[in-house]
Amino acid sequence: MADRRLAEVPRGECVTLLRGASFGRLGVSIDAVPAILPVLIALHDDSVVFQTVPGTKLAAAASNTVVALEVDDFDPERREGWSVLVRGIASVITDPERRAQACDLLDGSWIVDGSAQHLVSVSLDLVTGRRLHGADTATIPTT
Amino acid sequence: MADRRLAEVPRGECVTLLRGASFGRLGVSIDAVPAILPVLIALHDDSVVFQTVPGTKLAAAASNTVVALEVDDFDPERREGWSVLVRGIASVITDPERRAQACDLLDGSWIVDGSAQHLVSVSLDLVTGRRLHGADTATIPTT
Repeated sequence: MADRRLAEVPRGECVTLLRGASFGRLGVSIDAVPAILPVLIALHDDSVVFQTVPGTKLAAAASNTVVALEVDDFDPERREGWSVLVRGIASVITDPERRAQACDLLDGSWIVDGSAQHLVSVSLDLVTGRRLHGADTATIPTT
Repeated sequence: MADRRLAEVPRGECVTLLRGASFGRLGVSIDAVPAILPVLIALHDDSVVFQTVPGTKLAAAASNTVVALEVDDFDPERREGWSVLVRGIASVITDPERRAQACDLLDGSWIVDGSAQHLVSVSLDLVTGRRLHGADTATIPTT
């Protein structure tokens, strides 16, 4: 076994990593139980936007509540990578112009029926990131 | 844009997918705010096991509470893949034999200091999965 090293990623770099991501995982509470669900994402006006289908538990859970949104990229072979965690208020985008912009950014969406989509934005209230370096480092994290 | 299709994955297949995974994401509530954190995982005795460093917020949050644990594999190019979500009670493994077995399964752990690790198991109380097929299908999910 080898020593590993965990380092905090500054907010600016976290936002850059978010900008390059098209896929993330949404953490919500459904019936008071935590759940994690994959979502297609894009960065738009200092928010992360994603789409859901109206009427789902996800849509209900993600409206005007605090949610977590995670993006990561880990290499299982090298056992190194990074993760970024956004925590903020989720709100449904209703303004037509913002909806159109968000749709453009989410072009190539995985589930298609434009008019029927909820578009949800998550404010970047709290953005944190961690980077795990490979075996060439020798510091063991203690926190 | 193309139509996509989302299908439920049966529990048995979910467990098989979990067995093949070494990396997952833990959903917990930290200070009443949802968070998602990457963890090294293994399947052991009908539980998912992972390690944390004692004294962390993660360790506190993951002890005897209901947590979510997600594993996925999506191909951004083909826009298809699968995700499995486990929801269950997290409990610290204290039995020496079970600790040893869990350590073996988590061999090659990303953060190393065996004696200082919390080993946590998550019961497979609720296991669900979804598979997203590519553009060659024509059904739009409505739920």
